[in-house]
Amino acid sequence: MKINLPPQTTLTPCPVLIIGTYGVDGKPDIMNAAWGGIACSEPPCISVSLRKETLTYHNIKAAKAFTVNIPSEKYFREADFVGLVSGKTHDKFRETGLTPEKSGRVNAPIVAEFPYALECKLVQLVDLGLHTMFIGEIVGLVADDDVLTEKRIPDIEKVRPLVFGSFGTMSYYGIGRKIAAAFSVGNELKKV
Amino acid sequence: MKINLPPQTTLTPCPVLIIGTYGVDGKPDIMNAAWGGIACSEPPCISVSLRKETLTYHNIKAAKAFTVNIPSEKYFREADFVGLVSGKTHDKFRETGLTPEKSGRVNAPIVAEFPYALECKLVQLVDLGLHTMFIGEIVGLVADDDVLTEKRIPDIEKVRPLVFGSFGTMSYYGIGRKIAAAFSVGNELKKV
Repeated sequence: MKINLPPQTTLTPCPVLIIGTYGVDGKPDIMNAAWGGIACSEPPCISVSLRKETLTYHNIKAAKAFTVNIPSEKYFREADFVGLVSGKTHDKFRETGLTPEKSGRVNAPIVAEFPYALECKLVQLVDLGLHTMFIGEIVGLVADDDVLTEKRIPDIEKVRPLVFGSFGTMSYYGIGRKIAAAFSVGNELKKV
Repeated sequence: MKINLPPQTTLTPCPVLIIGTYGVDGKPDIMNAAWGGIACSEPPCISVSLRKETLTYHNIKAAKAFTVNIPSEKYFREADFVGLVSGKTHDKFRETGLTPEKSGRVNAPIVAEFPYALECKLVQLVDLGLHTMFIGEIVGLVADDDVLTEKRIPDIEKVRPLVFGSFGTMSYYGIGRKIAAAFSVGNELKKV
């Protein structure tokens, strides 16, 4: 039976995006964001929504750059931790033991232990209320060679990313079984 | 070993968003979009990026409303099909056998067979290039009662949504095992 409910920001699945920035003092920081996704194919853009209270919000406004790092599932503790505490009062790289490496293309750090990162230059801000969308052009990708397909694209089965299951169960999940080929299996419904 | 690669719109995971709209002629349509995510908590907003070539792009601009329907994994063929053909030349509800039900809160159809849908009113357009972001305020949620938690939030383990694995494997996946409690497990890294 269908039920009408008040609005909720429930989306399944949500990604686990670890946003890397430098502070104006040069200190590297990371935070966990679930509100975001690819925004455009050409130019390649990604959007991440942040609250004004976060250090990351101010770091991106100043540096005009950020990275989007994708943690593999074994880093669930580190990914969660960097969403629980603020970079204003914590050195999150030191406290997690993760390693910041400077991106060669943007003024932001990459998490060395994570399988891949998108390097982004800020192109637009959209203030919506509690959150502001930071739209970044993806200017490069840094990846571990052993998670890439032959075409040098990150392979989700090797990356083994975390999935945020949204507010229902408030939990992280792994990726499950492969179900079907995208942009392909739907052809079975085409009438001959 | 880390490799520097040209930009890619690779994000793992991506959601499978089935966007419901009415045409100016009242005909219900659905399309599959992977570029999108929650954009703001208050007011609750979601963003979906669409190409100008799609019927959905024009339908939303005219109706100022859309729904975001989340298919459960058994609808992988239908979800893929509605991304392969255009509503300009196909009646996608009829051809998939899915049922359009009018939303009670916005001028857009809901897919009756899918476990839940977000009802959205268009609040802003952001033209980025090939894609335009459609930012909608979520004004309601319609869900099957049997996929809800006690707090009446969709439970990802009951919804069993599809996950698009991005371009590496170009495949749909299910949700995997629960790994840890979010906003919680990171506390294990806090120093006492």
